[in-house]
Amino acid sequence: MKKIINDPKDIIEEMLSGIVESYPSLVHRVADSRVIAKNSSLAQVGLVSGGGSGHEPAHAGFVGDGMLSAAVLGDVFTSPTPDQIEIAIEEANQGQGVLLIVKNYTGDILNFEMAKDLAEMNEIATEIVVVDDDIAVEDSTYTAGKRGVAGTILVHKILGNAAKHGASLTELKTLGERVVAATKTIGVALKAATVPEVGKPGFSLAEDEIEFGVGIHGEPGYRKEQLQPSKALAQEMVTKLLASYEEKPQTIGVLVNGMGGTPLMEQFVFINDVLHLLTEENISVSFHKVGNYMTSIDMQGLSLTFIDLADQTWQHALTRYVSTISW
Amino acid sequence: MKKIINDPKDIIEEMLSGIVESYPSLVHRVADSRVIAKNSSLAQVGLVSGGGSGHEPAHAGFVGDGMLSAAVLGDVFTSPTPDQIEIAIEEANQGQGVLLIVKNYTGDILNFEMAKDLAEMNEIATEIVVVDDDIAVEDSTYTAGKRGVAGTILVHKILGNAAKHGASLTELKTLGERVVAATKTIGVALKAATVPEVGKPGFSLAEDEIEFGVGIHGEPGYRKEQLQPSKALAQEMVTKLLASYEEKPQTIGVLVNGMGGTPLMEQFVFINDVLHLLTEENISVSFHKVGNYMTSIDMQGLSLTFIDLADQTWQHALTRYVSTISW
Repeated sequence: MKKIINDPKDIIEEMLSGIVESYPSLVHRVADSRVIAKNSSLAQVGLVSGGGSGHEPAHAGFVGDGMLSAAVLGDVFTSPTPDQIEIAIEEANQGQGVLLIVKNYTGDILNFEMAKDLAEMNEIATEIVVVDDDIAVEDSTYTAGKRGVAGTILVHKILGNAAKHGASLTELKTLGERVVAATKTIGVALKAATVPEVGKPGFSLAEDEIEFGVGIHGEPGYRKEQLQPSKALAQEMVTKLLASYEEKPQTIGVLVNGMGGTPLMEQFVFINDVLHLLTEENISVSFHKVGNYMTSIDMQGLSLTFIDLADQTWQHALTRYVSTISW
Repeated sequence: MKKIINDPKDIIEEMLSGIVESYPSLVHRVADSRVIAKNSSLAQVGLVSGGGSGHEPAHAGFVGDGMLSAAVLGDVFTSPTPDQIEIAIEEANQGQGVLLIVKNYTGDILNFEMAKDLAEMNEIATEIVVVDDDIAVEDSTYTAGKRGVAGTILVHKILGNAAKHGASLTELKTLGERVVAATKTIGVALKAATVPEVGKPGFSLAEDEIEFGVGIHGEPGYRKEQLQPSKALAQEMVTKLLASYEEKPQTIGVLVNGMGGTPLMEQFVFINDVLHLLTEENISVSFHKVGNYMTSIDMQGLSLTFIDLADQTWQHALTRYVSTISW
């Protein structure tokens, strides 16, 4: 394993410290916790997300005015504990309640629900929106139902904008569920991530082999195949995504998300192929985003997310300026 | 070679198309060229940069109001041709002349100088600022003198801000030379990049070996060693950078730049170590930036850049909001 780290058991502490010390004008660490919170504290419903580390810049990179109020970090690929999530809820609460945006993994759901119970005992109104945008497989490793992956950052953005403009906790939960239903993601992996404490890749692929549908913790996908040109990958993924909508969308947003080890060069070549296919399908694209947003440490590969933007206010929400580290 | 591409010879065309089609509100392609230009055209001195492809998001990601007027792309790791650079100059010119920001590589210098001559024949006043921030070695492969690397993006930002606020061509050239003199970078590589048309890594390192001072095209560095903890890498690189200043700076900006294949997790662990060392040195850090800005395709490794911020207006320039794809 070749990584720029110190002792693997200190990674989270050191990374967290690196993040907050690098962006002191935007975020701070809640004392003695694994919670990164925004510096400004407008009167609004608080938004909290988080999960295992290893997906950087998610979620700490999306903390800031107009997106998340706070992010809570677990160990690598491991849910944060309920007490840490509860600290994030307390920090985010401005008296109007707190919405938790949780990627659908069994451990995360369990711990965020426990934290919700703790917060409610402290009289903080709390709701949960579960993101399950990954259409690749049902009932994966660590997950009942579909997994929550890169589409989560679009949920952060649209709900963050709504919260900033005064939406109530109930309105945000309803909006969140609508956004999640409109958001679909599928991934492809070329090479597995190496978790520092494990020291070797989490799964193996032959030198010319790829896997469709791999999750952001290396969960198995739905098909292994020989490496194909970008155009063929785009065809497979666009077809699968469009088939997952009950009705073919007319206007969408497109997110190409690098998994951590895939250069932008490949991501831009790939989105070029995706956009050509969408033109052929007469689907209009009114929002685009390309880069590493929900990674799997150093995995090689990428995911493609579509969001149905029939509701034009969502497109507006996605393009509003926010002051975060990484949006 | 495992890459998400089509025919390697189409990469630049497809990537360029992917970039401009993904960010149509910010940039456009100058017809029949390899030039990406900003959509707005304020009356100001034009700023043009560019170079070989493979360093994404540099330089197209830094085109926008407050940074570059246009970026020109060569083949992978190959200088753009003078005629293409001349197109970028014509596009950037608003009647007040054009400044070219060029990384110090022999091919780039030659071609940008030829383009400057062409532009001057067309009566466009043109000046060149050469960036040679890499302190690792003198006279490298492809380079006489020191190489130009990640510090270039800080030059883009400070000059971009000055140009937007009315600096003249002469003032920008003088400012550019001062900024370059204050900017120092050093890199470390864990694994070489693979140029798509070549198909195999550009150099080799043993499984436990790293190389200090490698350039952004894989040029040899100054020492190979066993992989060390992040703290030790930081110590080596901070010491070398500080020693390169005639007088130890009191306030600096710090850029940790991932080479393309290094996850943010490692970059944040590394900057945490850097910042601790700077605290011990009683050096204040008033600007931080962490991420993949001047990459070497999929190289694993990172570079560390310091900029002496004795001139406080530079810190201000670095933190001003800009509308670009990647700043």
